[in-house]
Amino acid sequence: MPKRIAAFGEVMMRLQVPGYDLLSQSSTLQYSFSGTGVNVVSALTRFGHAGYLVTTLPANPLGDAAAAHLRRLGVSTDFVRREGPYLGMYFLENGFGARPSRVTYSNRLESSFNAAPEGAYDWEAVASTADAMHFCGIALAMNDTVRGHMAALARAVKKKSGKVVFDCNYRPSLWGEGGYAKAKPHYIEMLGLADLVLMNEKDAIHILGMETGQTERKDQLTELIPAVAERFGISAIAGTHRSVNGDNTHSLEGYLFKEGSFAFSRKLTFSVYDRIGAGDAYASGILHGELSGYAPDRTVAFAAAAALLAHTVSGDTPMSSEADIRRVMEESASDIER
Amino acid sequence: MPKRIAAFGEVMMRLQVPGYDLLSQSSTLQYSFSGTGVNVVSALTRFGHAGYLVTTLPANPLGDAAAAHLRRLGVSTDFVRREGPYLGMYFLENGFGARPSRVTYSNRLESSFNAAPEGAYDWEAVASTADAMHFCGIALAMNDTVRGHMAALARAVKKKSGKVVFDCNYRPSLWGEGGYAKAKPHYIEMLGLADLVLMNEKDAIHILGMETGQTERKDQLTELIPAVAERFGISAIAGTHRSVNGDNTHSLEGYLFKEGSFAFSRKLTFSVYDRIGAGDAYASGILHGELSGYAPDRTVAFAAAAALLAHTVSGDTPMSSEADIRRVMEESASDIER
Amino acid sequence: MPKRIAAFGEVMMRLQVPGYDLLSQSSTLQYSFSGTGVNVVSALTRFGHAGYLVTTLPANPLGDAAAAHLRRLGVSTDFVRREGPYLGMYFLENGFGARPSRVTYSNRLESSFNAAPEGAYDWEAVASTADAMHFCGIALAMNDTVRGHMAALARAVKKKSGKVVFDCNYRPSLWGEGGYAKAKPHYIEMLGLADLVLMNEKDAIHILGMETGQTERKDQLTELIPAVAERFGISAIAGTHRSVNGDNTHSLEGYLFKEGSFAFSRKLTFSVYDRIGAGDAYASGILHGELSGYAPDRTVAFAAAAALLAHTVSGDTPMSSEADIRRVMEESASDIER
Amino acid sequence: MPKRIAAFGEVMMRLQVPGYDLLSQSSTLQYSFSGTGVNVVSALTRFGHAGYLVTTLPANPLGDAAAAHLRRLGVSTDFVRREGPYLGMYFLENGFGARPSRVTYSNRLESSFNAAPEGAYDWEAVASTADAMHFCGIALAMNDTVRGHMAALARAVKKKSGKVVFDCNYRPSLWGEGGYAKAKPHYIEMLGLADLVLMNEKDAIHILGMETGQTERKDQLTELIPAVAERFGISAIAGTHRSVNGDNTHSLEGYLFKEGSFAFSRKLTFSVYDRIGAGDAYASGILHGELSGYAPDRTVAFAAAAALLAHTVSGDTPMSSEADIRRVMEESASDIER
Amino acid sequence: MPKRIAAFGEVMMRLQVPGYDLLSQSSTLQYSFSGTGVNVVSALTRFGHAGYLVTTLPANPLGDAAAAHLRRLGVSTDFVRREGPYLGMYFLENGFGARPSRVTYSNRLESSFNAAPEGAYDWEAVASTADAMHFCGIALAMNDTVRGHMAALARAVKKKSGKVVFDCNYRPSLWGEGGYAKAKPHYIEMLGLADLVLMNEKDAIHILGMETGQTERKDQLTELIPAVAERFGISAIAGTHRSVNGDNTHSLEGYLFKEGSFAFSRKLTFSVYDRIGAGDAYASGILHGELSGYAPDRTVAFAAAAALLAHTVSGDTPMSSEADIRRVMEESASDIER
Amino acid sequence: MPKRIAAFGEVMMRLQVPGYDLLSQSSTLQYSFSGTGVNVVSALTRFGHAGYLVTTLPANPLGDAAAAHLRRLGVSTDFVRREGPYLGMYFLENGFGARPSRVTYSNRLESSFNAAPEGAYDWEAVASTADAMHFCGIALAMNDTVRGHMAALARAVKKKSGKVVFDCNYRPSLWGEGGYAKAKPHYIEMLGLADLVLMNEKDAIHILGMETGQTERKDQLTELIPAVAERFGISAIAGTHRSVNGDNTHSLEGYLFKEGSFAFSRKLTFSVYDRIGAGDAYASGILHGELSGYAPDRTVAFAAAAALLAHTVSGDTPMSSEADIRRVMEESASDIER
Repeated sequence: MPKRIAAFGEVMMRLQVPGYDLLSQSSTLQYSFSGTGVNVVSALTRFGHAGYLVTTLPANPLGDAAAAHLRRLGVSTDFVRREGPYLGMYFLENGFGARPSRVTYSNRLESSFNAAPEGAYDWEAVASTADAMHFCGIALAMNDTVRGHMAALARAVKKKSGKVVFDCNYRPSLWGEGGYAKAKPHYIEMLGLADLVLMNEKDAIHILGMETGQTERKDQLTELIPAVAERFGISAIAGTHRSVNGDNTHSLEGYLFKEGSFAFSRKLTFSVYDRIGAGDAYASGILHGELSGYAPDRTVAFAAAAALLAHTVSGDTPMSSEADIRRVMEESASDIER
Repeated sequence: MPKRIAAFGEVMMRLQVPGYDLLSQSSTLQYSFSGTGVNVVSALTRFGHAGYLVTTLPANPLGDAAAAHLRRLGVSTDFVRREGPYLGMYFLENGFGARPSRVTYSNRLESSFNAAPEGAYDWEAVASTADAMHFCGIALAMNDTVRGHMAALARAVKKKSGKVVFDCNYRPSLWGEGGYAKAKPHYIEMLGLADLVLMNEKDAIHILGMETGQTERKDQLTELIPAVAERFGISAIAGTHRSVNGDNTHSLEGYLFKEGSFAFSRKLTFSVYDRIGAGDAYASGILHGELSGYAPDRTVAFAAAAALLAHTVSGDTPMSSEADIRRVMEESASDIER
Repeated sequence: MPKRIAAFGEVMMRLQVPGYDLLSQSSTLQYSFSGTGVNVVSALTRFGHAGYLVTTLPANPLGDAAAAHLRRLGVSTDFVRREGPYLGMYFLENGFGARPSRVTYSNRLESSFNAAPEGAYDWEAVASTADAMHFCGIALAMNDTVRGHMAALARAVKKKSGKVVFDCNYRPSLWGEGGYAKAKPHYIEMLGLADLVLMNEKDAIHILGMETGQTERKDQLTELIPAVAERFGISAIAGTHRSVNGDNTHSLEGYLFKEGSFAFSRKLTFSVYDRIGAGDAYASGILHGELSGYAPDRTVAFAAAAALLAHTVSGDTPMSSEADIRRVMEESASDIER
Repeated sequence: MPKRIAAFGEVMMRLQVPGYDLLSQSSTLQYSFSGTGVNVVSALTRFGHAGYLVTTLPANPLGDAAAAHLRRLGVSTDFVRREGPYLGMYFLENGFGARPSRVTYSNRLESSFNAAPEGAYDWEAVASTADAMHFCGIALAMNDTVRGHMAALARAVKKKSGKVVFDCNYRPSLWGEGGYAKAKPHYIEMLGLADLVLMNEKDAIHILGMETGQTERKDQLTELIPAVAERFGISAIAGTHRSVNGDNTHSLEGYLFKEGSFAFSRKLTFSVYDRIGAGDAYASGILHGELSGYAPDRTVAFAAAAALLAHTVSGDTPMSSEADIRRVMEESASDIER
Repeated sequence: MPKRIAAFGEVMMRLQVPGYDLLSQSSTLQYSFSGTGVNVVSALTRFGHAGYLVTTLPANPLGDAAAAHLRRLGVSTDFVRREGPYLGMYFLENGFGARPSRVTYSNRLESSFNAAPEGAYDWEAVASTADAMHFCGIALAMNDTVRGHMAALARAVKKKSGKVVFDCNYRPSLWGEGGYAKAKPHYIEMLGLADLVLMNEKDAIHILGMETGQTERKDQLTELIPAVAERFGISAIAGTHRSVNGDNTHSLEGYLFKEGSFAFSRKLTFSVYDRIGAGDAYASGILHGELSGYAPDRTVAFAAAAALLAHTVSGDTPMSSEADIRRVMEESASDIER
Repeated sequence: MPKRIAAFGEVMMRLQVPGYDLLSQSSTLQYSFSGTGVNVVSALTRFGHAGYLVTTLPANPLGDAAAAHLRRLGVSTDFVRREGPYLGMYFLENGFGARPSRVTYSNRLESSFNAAPEGAYDWEAVASTADAMHFCGIALAMNDTVRGHMAALARAVKKKSGKVVFDCNYRPSLWGEGGYAKAKPHYIEMLGLADLVLMNEKDAIHILGMETGQTERKDQLTELIPAVAERFGISAIAGTHRSVNGDNTHSLEGYLFKEGSFAFSRKLTFSVYDRIGAGDAYASGILHGELSGYAPDRTVAFAAAAALLAHTVSGDTPMSSEADIRRVMEESASDIER
């Protein structure tokens, strides 16, 4: 049965130089609008659920364009506020081979989302609608008002028996120097409210300061994640290990820890067209599996295949249907069909 | 000595989403016009022959654009009728890696080509011009009138001692459920009229219902193709085996069966830019070899190299010159020349 | 207070050659999706109402793209069925000066919309939602099943006390030879069900066969429209007179007949960027005025300004806000604001 | 009855900056291939005639592209030689309002056309095919070898009773300082060979050095053109007077002098999209009228309407059908038809 | 003799929707970099002077692109500092006819330019280089530090006998409510330092609060401007009156007040392609005349023609040469030259 | 400490077909301006040096565009002369896989650069500015006047104690048949003047006619390069060995011979996006190392990494900063940073 999933988060304008040119070589940009919340709920609408974004967009043509883009992606704008003049933006120059992609941000701290005052949102209305509510560590890095919104909304959702989902998504550049220490109390607050968490062992070590005698990533993971689950009373924790291979392919292995045991996906290796947003595709796959009552093995395989496909699609936002993902789960490379 | 080669077949408008976007992400399409017959005769004009298309295009701006495109490709429009309002179309979304390309057709059954009535074409004029006449299994799938055109034209050409070429080109989606049974009598009719046939063992097994105890594709091929040649009195049969490799390259091996023996090309492995139309490039290479009196070994090597190059060119229609193909036959990867 | 307005009608894919090139000169198309119903309800969402489309789109990537486009325009897809493979299309080549624009249609009669069988739609659900339901003469020209849908839905809406809106929108090319006679009974049926009608004196004369001794258009209008209103029991009738001036500008005068008297807009004269869809903008303005309880004078001025602005926007679908339209009502040409 | 018309002349590559940018602002060019001969015979193929170009194109990818473009325009490449490495080019920056368009040429004197040696062409073959043969003053400005080709071909055509057409087309920048004196003997030679000439009174005054006491252009024309016709034994002379109006429109009046009397078109006034090639459209209209046996009045009206439409089409080459031109002759500005 | 002209001001990134689409319709932007100072000194480099910009750009790929763009425009980046992460931006949607253009700003107050601290620039070095130094009212609206930079630099330039130029350029949206009162003391400070000022009577009335009994703009101008010159000891004051005409053309009349008397240009009327930056072209023309010792009549005619041409060029920055401008001064509309 | 580096050489316009289309398939070109000298000095400006080009550009819009492009790349145009009408051009069609890229030249011999007469340049001014002066074998292939410029300028630079750099850059197509013999005396002259030379063993063998009993390239190199250095008194010689691998990657190993010993880079293997100009990136790295006093090992590693990155950037001209290159020296493939 389809569910109603909402996400709280900022919408960013992505301004991408076409092809492999640099900003100083080109004179054209392609724009779209995205964000962790956008990506996750849009992906879920493709699996048949109803998706809502809870955010604030500017009350001007940029906000109009962002709202139109959200609707195009299938995301409901019923809980989107329109106020203020600014929208966060980032410029993307595609890398090639040994030359990495470059992301340059505008000053997002003045954005309508980050400037929305306490009391701006109607938590009651959101909580009455959402079966599950998604939050992420990027919003958590913004400012105290945003963090206040997050805690208040999570509490409202829990009160209505909705599921709270939290993606740790720690971004060093947002927290600045000494970031882990600054971030820790806020992460602890969100983890204490969450039912389903996206993270891996690095978050446990660096943000929560947990210790391990293990040296292999997977051993660290299997030691620390159950401890996190226990400490914060989290029902399910999921995440991925990614590696970049010498031949420009990437590899990805997903995990889901639940009811005391781990499920792992196959390690998938694949070519990458657009890497941004693939983590959100994984999260959407985990949510879909959990909301649909899949067995953990199937959930994690579905989520990993969703992540793989997100690397093959342009833009930040996953575009694959459930059928597309199932085909990847079942088949290997396929030729044109006609 | 250059020959005059005609093809009977439909012209389709190809509407391609640029880059790797989906139809629901983009707002721009690139269009061109193609078709098995277009591709084969256009390729042959690049080898110095004169190429003609026998078809019906709509009498409107779409038909004008298609005719202009055919001429641009070097194809004579002397036998192109202009009547009716509709043109078959297909939309192409490029795949990437694990995400396959998608083709979405418009309703081609109402196209000017498929609606051209009995008696519409002047077979006499075509047969008096063509040294060789190319037909394909795609047109055969359309309707009884089209099939009637094909048989009538093939007979007219034979009467004038022209060579009849038939490419089996079975497309499951066009014949629908129970397609092999529906298709069989029509294929039998065309095979009975053909001098040169493009096919492989799968056509023999599935369409003609022939049986084999062999399990390897190549063994099935060498058992069944001679039997087909004998049964239908076909002078030469050619085709390819293609495989998609794990690293996104494709491999292709061509064969030509003639006067009781097989010639095989080397197995070529290569990167793929645009896969559509590569089979037509192979057919054009076989025709060129046969019309030019090449030895079978050289014909099949030429055809395989032509197919390889067709994978490196955008659009459905092969664009390589004889010199380009010879270079591929002789050399391996080459750097820029200047 | 915002209303819920639904429209029943076909979604067409518009494939436009960029700039002023012909199809036989270019190789690129810009695509969007539109239709009278799309245009009217999308325009109304910009005035704060909720807009729904009742239609059938193909269950394939073309349908996905159309649905995404509808949502982008603010139109709810809750009543959009997905079935069948085909979508109506038209190609647009922009005219310049003395060279008129050209529209070339694909075979829309096989579209998912036109092939949707009796009983396909849930009229009850639509009628329970819509405060007003919009129909148009284009759909009426399609086939008996579509006409059956229209009558059934109009009756269901009336039963729930919804308002039935009918735009006569007679297109000679769709009805073919002897079209007025064929169309007449179907128009009579719809006029009999309608509360608000978009038409002018030409429809009365040609479709309904009404006679007038007047020779000036405006005299004909003021004689015939009241007679139509009386004969079919229609509460309000509105429409426009358009003229193309020698200097490439167009002029437009709107009227609204209601409760026995006419309101006329000023005659507006303006430059034209994209003419298609301007009539739908006028209709949306009339509906907005009527639904919002404007005085007839204000309604007709608002609708005419909405139509004017629709000529300045690219694409078929009006994009102006109520504030944009009010500014045009109040001001004349304005410079950049910053 | 359709005729076969050939033109002798150079093919130029047109490299146009899109929109209204300057070369130093943009990074993109749109390219096409044109030339007076190309334009005239391409226009005539749209009226149902067969069109041939007699020229030399480089034996490299630029020549391939030019040849493909000629075929796309409907021009036969049967008399196109392929030799040498260079193609003439020009860059076009579109003007706007008070800012004029700018044309920058590459060094065309080394082009394959201008370097083709004496004896390169098979005049016999061309003369056996062409009912009419078109030459122009641009080629005459190139070098002695090209001029030798022109005279030899004109004589060959006359011997076979073909019609020789000469468009004076004097370009000051090509002849350089003291150009009229240099040009005079060559123009006299071509006028002596011509049956139909395109020119106006300025050519008579400046190139031929004829004198007139009249001060109005039209009076000069009616005095001088009959004298030119008599002196050189020319059957028909045609041309235009063009003026640029204050409101960015252009006006054009065509004339045809034949059998002792003048026919004039209406003075047409129109908006201009792409001015280049409009004179060639006029010439094609005159040729069509003459080849089809139109009365002078009808010929000159047709030619003027063809010239008008050529201003509304992008690129140098006229794209209008006979029906398009007839509609302009009959109607005034028309709205979209659908 | 060429001079060295520097300007102090912010570089903005202009992000323009191509054609006439809205931000919510398109997915592509064209970007360039401009600003009053950029426009003025770039225009002056085209007249043979050396142009410098004094500004701060971000130390990231956006700053690289801006610096490359400045150099492309001929502006020296020797006095461009690179520090901080942000660049001011604005989005531009082109209007058409009755639909005005729309400009949407990003939060420029955090830009590198506006965040450059006191003491950041080396005024000595700038003042030693610049024969004239240009400031404008846009920068004056930013913050106290920027205003501090302006006063300090103007004083340094005066000390070295350089000329101080100040363009009032009052923008209501930047000063906010009660803006005139806020702005007044800052304008008074800059006017007190300036040798050459760009302004008109509205600035005198609204910013300086001067009174006049005149009601016609030109009478107000001739009354107030001499008073301003006297009060602040300004050598020369120049400006324009612009009007938008009913037929989409604009009219512009320039003035220069100097040594007690007024010079006026003709009133020029023209079509507009890109209106932004035309005022800067006028300013550049006045500076060029003054720096080159033109008579006031010639200066004002040159400046008005420069402004006219700037309306015909895409982008904010004037691109015309002295020869281009002289041609406009001398000629009227001209046809293609080749 | 930053240096001033000048290069003498031609600027070519690069006209590239977008994507992988052929000239006969497309209708759009992307243009930029480059040349060995442009590439080398532009790369050096990114490392903090001042770069100058000594050349002649046409005095027309093509020259304006080229000069603007040079400035955009950071290259000073202070020594750029503007004279004559023509610019060298080349068309580039991108290859894919087995299909090689194709370059088609325009007739560059008539270019402004190649037509600049003796005495055109002010060598004194250049030599007073340049710490190092770069020449290349492409200019040497042009004509005697250009070769005269090169020798005169090299002598002027040496007199002022500037460093003379010569890149052998032998292009068979420019020297034609028997090219090595024609080239030899000119290469001997330049080598005799040079302090730093870019070459490898093939130049020694083919141009200088030196002999070696070695059969391996590296053995030939280590035998012949020291002999060249000794014979011509060259302080430092550098170059690369490149190989194209089966999997479409390239490998490159750089060397630097100086003070009697060789330094070699690691053999780098990498994917290629745009191969043109990579040799110039290597040369710029060697110059930077030499001018900055790097140890030979570091110089050659830096140069090889610069060359690698140049393969990943579009266009002929290297765009990498010193920091970008250092990262490649230190790291392997990296993921997005944000």
